Parts: sequence; C-alpha cells; structure tokens
Amino acid sequence: MLKLFYASGTCSLAAHIALEETGPVYEALRVDFATGEQTRPEYLEINPKGRVPALVTERGVLTETPAILSYIAQTFPRAGLAPQDDAFLFGQMQAFNVYLASTLHIAFAHVYRPTRFADGEAAAEAMRAKAPQVIDDAFALIEAQLAGDWVLGDRYSVADAYLYVFSRWFARDKLGHPQRFGRLAAHMRRIEAREAVQRVLAVEGLASMGPLA
Amino acid sequence: MLKLFYASGTCSLAAHIALEETGPVYEALRVDFATGEQTRPEYLEINPKGRVPALVTERGVLTETPAILSYIAQTFPRAGLAPQDDAFLFGQMQAFNVYLASTLHIAFAHVYRPTRFADGEAAAEAMRAKAPQVIDDAFALIEAQLAGDWVLGDRYSVADAYLYVFSRWFARDKLGHPQRFGRLAAHMRRIEAREAVQRVLAVEGLASMGPLA
Repeated sequence: MLKLFYASGTCSLAAHIALEETGPVYEALRVDFATGEQTRPEYLEINPKGRVPALVTERGVLTETPAILSYIAQTFPRAGLAPQDDAFLFGQMQAFNVYLASTLHIAFAHVYRPTRFADGEAAAEAMRAKAPQVIDDAFALIEAQLAGDWVLGDRYSVADAYLYVFSRWFARDKLGHPQRFGRLAAHMRRIEAREAVQRVLAVEGLASMGPLA
Repeated sequence: MLKLFYASGTCSLAAHIALEETGPVYEALRVDFATGEQTRPEYLEINPKGRVPALVTERGVLTETPAILSYIAQTFPRAGLAPQDDAFLFGQMQAFNVYLASTLHIAFAHVYRPTRFADGEAAAEAMRAKAPQVIDDAFALIEAQLAGDWVLGDRYSVADAYLYVFSRWFARDKLGHPQRFGRLAAHMRRIEAREAVQRVLAVEGLASMGPLA
C-alpha cells in the first residue's frame, strides 16, 4: 500500500486528493510542520529535502508534486486522472503542473518562507512587496486558460487538484486580487463539490473556502 | 515538423539536445534575448510567458522544460530517452526534472534575474548572497544521487540533458563550489562526449565546459 506523507493545507493536498480519487489504495501520514517534524532525522531518511509530499512506494520514494501526481494517474488508470493515451494533452497537463510548481508556488514561498531565498528583514519585505504582482500575473494567465469546467477543458485531472492548493492560498491570504478571477472562483466551487475533496479536507482538518473574494 | 524556440545557453538547451538525440524531426529557431525578442508581440503569441523553450507541435504549443522533455521522449520512443514502460522510474525522472525546474533553476534565477522576485539593489544583493549556498546544497543532493553514469543509473535520459544546463552554469559562474562535485564533473565530461550534444553546442555557438573546477 502506498504511503503519503503530507502536512495539512500545504501543496501535499494535491497528491492527497489524487489518491483519494483513486480509492482505498493508500495510507496518509501527517507530518507536523508546527513542531518541525519535517527536519527530524526520521523524516529526512524518507525525504532528504525535508519537504512534503513524499510518496512511499514498494520501489522507493517519490517526491515533487507534478511527478507524484502523474505517477498516481499512471498507476491507477481506471480513475482517469490524466490523459495517458494522448502525449500532447498529457504534455499540456504536465506543463500546467510544472508552471504551478516553478512559478506560482515559488511566488507564494517568497512570502511564506523568505529565508529560502535571502536573509534579513529588508529583503523579506522587498519579496513580500513584489509577490502579489507575480501571483496576480500567474493567476491571470491561468484564468485565461480556464475555458471549460476543468484545467484540461471537459475532463477532470490531477491538475485540478493541484490548482486548488493555490486558489485556497490565494483566497485565504489575499496576496494579490482573488476577487478579479471569476473562472478561478467557479473552478474552486466545482472542485469543492467533489466527494473525494470533501473527505480529504475533513482528514486534513480544513474548511471549504467557498467564494474567492 | 516540430519547431523549438530556444535562446543560446539557456535552459532550452535541454530540449534542443533531446530533439537532436531523436534525429531530424525538428527545426530550431533562435530567440535573441539580447534584443528582448522574447517580449515582442510575435513571440508572446507563441508563448505568453515570454520564456524559452517553447515547442510548437501540430496540436499546439508546449512550454515548461520537464513537460517538453517527456513529450519528446514519449513521441519518439525509439530514441529511448525515458523509461516509459516503468511508471516508478519515469516518476523518478520527472521528480528529478521538476526539482531542477523548481529549486535549482530558481536559485540561479535569483542571481541572473532578481527583479522577478524583488525590486531594488539591496534585495538583489541579499539574493545574490544567499544563492550560492542554495546551489551548493542542491548540487550536493544531486551528487549523492549520481551513482551511475547517468541520472537514472545506467540509462541515459532527458534528465541528463537537463542537468547539463545547470552544471554548465555552475562551472561558468562558480556560484557555489563546483570543484567539490566529482561525480557531477564526470557526468559533464560524459554528456559532452555525445555527438548530439556537440552538434547542438555548435548550433547554439557554445563551447564545451570541460572540467568543473
């Protein structure tokens, strides 16, 4: 059975939802960031990066959300969580996920964890000042792409669960202007209506966000 | 025929090498960063992010290096550039590529393009001061993984071409301590010995880097 190491409300929420969509194929193990559990030797043995998510498989450990998400989709094809029969559509999904990981998540990280990028309060302040603009720009690009119900148009995929991580943060912390993005708000309502999503929110102790603004 | 938009010596080098490994299946089109060609309307129509690489296919445009690399590997399976028959190994390759995109590339970007993350010279200075430590830490993690000839052990894959982008930058700009990483140096010599790599370097007007230190 797969084991997912997650921390409540972090980006590991995406992998948690993807696994829950596939069925009872995994065990979810909480890592407590409040007590720094992710930096203890026992966890670093699982993921030397000291981050979540980490997915423990029979063959070894996988890290990095876009990789874990496509692994889940490929391993449980009946859940239909990725367009595996179509290299171009699969590429588009991967491009979307990698953009979230390498641009949008990074923009939020400059606010939440500035010391990853520079030391000192003045630098942290400068990064906090810039991030809302980068976040708005990224969501504007995403909003323009959200033509259908889901990221890939009419088919739900792991990309939707991953997007939901960041629309939650956006709605919660208002870094930027979430009220400007109507399609994103509709997407959040749509994904929060899924039973698997509600089950995972309950396990992680999180509430639905409801409207963006 | 696929069209790759690239800028010399940037991260698009990885996709350029991957395509060249597959054979005469593409046309490479240079985007001139020195004259800001990536921000002109004609290019933004291809890639609204104003970045390279962008891969134009018959179905549309793909962006983000890890997505482009797996698309190339999946579209030209005979080149053997990814372990497509093995979801776990494919996941490991993707995890490696996403780590390069979302951690290592980002660390270099804080030095090369600080205004993406904060405005002002003081903040840029603070980011430049921190980046070498982040880069060394990332390469230490990679060095520990490089047990065989290639990223995936005994089989060459698109991950090797992608790693080469950053070992070139590391060797060139010495942001951190490249001389500490013997396996990485051996990996660079190994990949520079490949004919496809030499052909791409010639097209992009780049020299081999030789030893890391």
